[in-house]
Amino acid sequence: MQDLNSAMAKAVTARESIRKWDRSQIISLLETIAEKLDGAASELIPLAMNETNLTEVRLTGEVGRMSGQWRHMAAVLKKGDYLGTVIDSADSTLQPPRPELRKTTVPLGVVGIFGASNFPFAFGVGGCDTASAIAAGCPVIIKAHPGHLETSRKVFQIMAAAAQSVNAPDGLFNMVEAFEAGIEFVKHKDVSAVAFTGSTLGGRALFDIAQSRKDPIPFYGELGGLNPIFVTEEAANRNGSVIAQGFLDSVNLGAGQFCTKPGYLILVNGSKMREEIVNLVPTVVTHAMLNEKIREAHARNRSTYAGLPFVKLLAQGVATSDAIEPITIFEISGADLLANQEVTLKEVFGPTAVVVNCASNEEALKVANSFHGTLASGIHGEVNDRIISMGLLDILVRISGRIIWNSWPTGVAVTWAMHHGGPYPASTNSLFTSVGADSIKRFRRPVVFQNMPTELLPTELK
Amino acid sequence: MQDLNSAMAKAVTARESIRKWDRSQIISLLETIAEKLDGAASELIPLAMNETNLTEVRLTGEVGRMSGQWRHMAAVLKKGDYLGTVIDSADSTLQPPRPELRKTTVPLGVVGIFGASNFPFAFGVGGCDTASAIAAGCPVIIKAHPGHLETSRKVFQIMAAAAQSVNAPDGLFNMVEAFEAGIEFVKHKDVSAVAFTGSTLGGRALFDIAQSRKDPIPFYGELGGLNPIFVTEEAANRNGSVIAQGFLDSVNLGAGQFCTKPGYLILVNGSKMREEIVNLVPTVVTHAMLNEKIREAHARNRSTYAGLPFVKLLAQGVATSDAIEPITIFEISGADLLANQEVTLKEVFGPTAVVVNCASNEEALKVANSFHGTLASGIHGEVNDRIISMGLLDILVRISGRIIWNSWPTGVAVTWAMHHGGPYPASTNSLFTSVGADSIKRFRRPVVFQNMPTELLPTELK
Repeated sequence: MQDLNSAMAKAVTARESIRKWDRSQIISLLETIAEKLDGAASELIPLAMNETNLTEVRLTGEVGRMSGQWRHMAAVLKKGDYLGTVIDSADSTLQPPRPELRKTTVPLGVVGIFGASNFPFAFGVGGCDTASAIAAGCPVIIKAHPGHLETSRKVFQIMAAAAQSVNAPDGLFNMVEAFEAGIEFVKHKDVSAVAFTGSTLGGRALFDIAQSRKDPIPFYGELGGLNPIFVTEEAANRNGSVIAQGFLDSVNLGAGQFCTKPGYLILVNGSKMREEIVNLVPTVVTHAMLNEKIREAHARNRSTYAGLPFVKLLAQGVATSDAIEPITIFEISGADLLANQEVTLKEVFGPTAVVVNCASNEEALKVANSFHGTLASGIHGEVNDRIISMGLLDILVRISGRIIWNSWPTGVAVTWAMHHGGPYPASTNSLFTSVGADSIKRFRRPVVFQNMPTELLPTELK
Repeated sequence: MQDLNSAMAKAVTARESIRKWDRSQIISLLETIAEKLDGAASELIPLAMNETNLTEVRLTGEVGRMSGQWRHMAAVLKKGDYLGTVIDSADSTLQPPRPELRKTTVPLGVVGIFGASNFPFAFGVGGCDTASAIAAGCPVIIKAHPGHLETSRKVFQIMAAAAQSVNAPDGLFNMVEAFEAGIEFVKHKDVSAVAFTGSTLGGRALFDIAQSRKDPIPFYGELGGLNPIFVTEEAANRNGSVIAQGFLDSVNLGAGQFCTKPGYLILVNGSKMREEIVNLVPTVVTHAMLNEKIREAHARNRSTYAGLPFVKLLAQGVATSDAIEPITIFEISGADLLANQEVTLKEVFGPTAVVVNCASNEEALKVANSFHGTLASGIHGEVNDRIISMGLLDILVRISGRIIWNSWPTGVAVTWAMHHGGPYPASTNSLFTSVGADSIKRFRRPVVFQNMPTELLPTELK
């Protein structure tokens, strides 16, 4: 681990230097990186197309999202709320007397980051975890995803060069590629937090390492979700074909390789809408998955799910080549799902989803209650539909981080109010988001200064 | 665990009922509890005096602090910032179009709480963890500390009766007493977070259980600290006797049974001030410790520390009875402390502290860097004293949650800006505080509503 140790030594030096930076300098760094990433789009997109099977249109959008995240973080720093400053004046008339207290937040330290497979730009080496950690004033050590190494290297080079161009401390950006190096940095004494986007299995293994350290560190894992979407009985009758089309489009987006894919569509007496889905599936054109390893995993997991005795194949698209997994929609009764939750509630990463046929609103509520934590959930309906008055929304609030009305969960806007997280296993810490303005809060901790002379206070507390 | 399971079943019912409450109803509950606790002071204080050896004056102040925390939480709810609401309007001109997003926070669920030994009121069954969890809208299951069971039962009865008087849901307050019951509720599927104040050993064991659950839950452990206080060479010369007296008063407060006791006093060429300490120690009157078990632990830990070959006894007070541990001040050179950090940096819970004699500012900075995370740290000096310009404050920011200038860490004001937490092992999660307004944030998680009809939104988002 010589590489890791020398990288960490530089990162620790950078950690101290970056604390001396004005906020305006960090803003300039963030904006420079955004500009340089945009400027390199024509180099980046072909690299990622070559490594991931994703289309030019999709990757063009994703480069824009990546650079947009850096600009959004610059806006977060300009706004300043993220500092969380609070000031109490001294009050000697109280018993006991109250001292002067001035609170702000400081960077946590070096942050270890695991890029995701499915978004080489938006959640990759230059994704939101990196942007928010750097914006927070934390050096990063990033594990590049093996699914797009060349793309990762190029993004890293662009960020490092941009940092150099504004005289950022050497060692602010670090990247490793070996599988073991990722595990080693989670254990490293000078890593102060870890951010991860990926599978529940991999994320949990790294979480366990981070929590069993001599000094446990925050581990922000975003591990996906089943993202159940409920269609009220009334909505299915009113609007079934439009909802069916929206569902299939959302499942099929990016060949189903979204952590926000609507994995379960819950219908109540929905035989008519079920037919709409059967009719529409053959028209769906699916893209190739990211790579052969992921395609094989999808085929394997789909096959396991298909083998469950109470699961039926509702409809399946046509594979136009060996590299393509056809869209696959299973169906199961609400009763069978409830009776076999250990095996029926499973994420199949890829263009596969499950229609749950419930015989009553009561059964649909039980199904809602059976889901573990999820990033998103949703309802298609109207306010006066019966299941709404029966408390469906309360259940979805309990299990989800984001709840969507008459729309689909796949898009995750990079905004001030976004929350991309949820109760475990959606996130390893449901109090934090990995997308949007508040993602920066993962990497700063409060410090309060008591009776401190003004000259010694951080700028924002003076 | 029949008791625990029936308590948990009621708590889960209360969890759903309390979500239907208006904020004004919770405010009324908090204020009623504050009033009833104050009203019972004359019953509570003798119970605690009998169980803990703490004085009437101290316990009178502590009942006021306890009720004050409930009132402060009512003020937090009135202010409303704790909800963390953020609203993005829809914007169809963006690419991709931005949906309407309305974010707030919701209660985490049932919170398990471990009361501390050393503050039967302020950090006990009715302490800040309970007040902030209830204020957050979370039912509680509390493990009473065996050191003051009768006091705990009475505080619990008062809270439960107050809850009943305002028609709060049955099952909002729950208490268990058995050692095993505490472990079991950390493992219980329906407990959503745990708050703990106590030893590093006990806290870490429970943290490990919480993190190794099938669904890990937030564990907010406040495990204490060494709270090093640095006296600049110039300040020791200017003002040594006043600082020495303040140090001994702070070490001796509550017989040293504060997690914020200044455990280490670092001097630079401080032989004159060292003499002041030697002269003052015999005048210090120490109270009896909480109970015999804690006194024995103190005597044992003090004896272990005394046995280190490079540690000298600087001064010791006189024990006026067998129940009393005399104040004990050890001394060690900066060089010896640095060369033997595994054994020299240890919390001795009780009226014992260590003076560290440094030969230079450089050595004092190395000593500062050697401390692990701590709740508090401090400096006695003036802005132009030399060690300040050498970066002492930056080091203290890295290791501490609160930094005190020309004062002492023992008092922890219940205010808007207080931060009572710090890097591990001060806290198991350094991003959160267990005292002050922000303590409520430990028990709420964000949820964002996307395109949700106004009728279905929580009040604060309408």
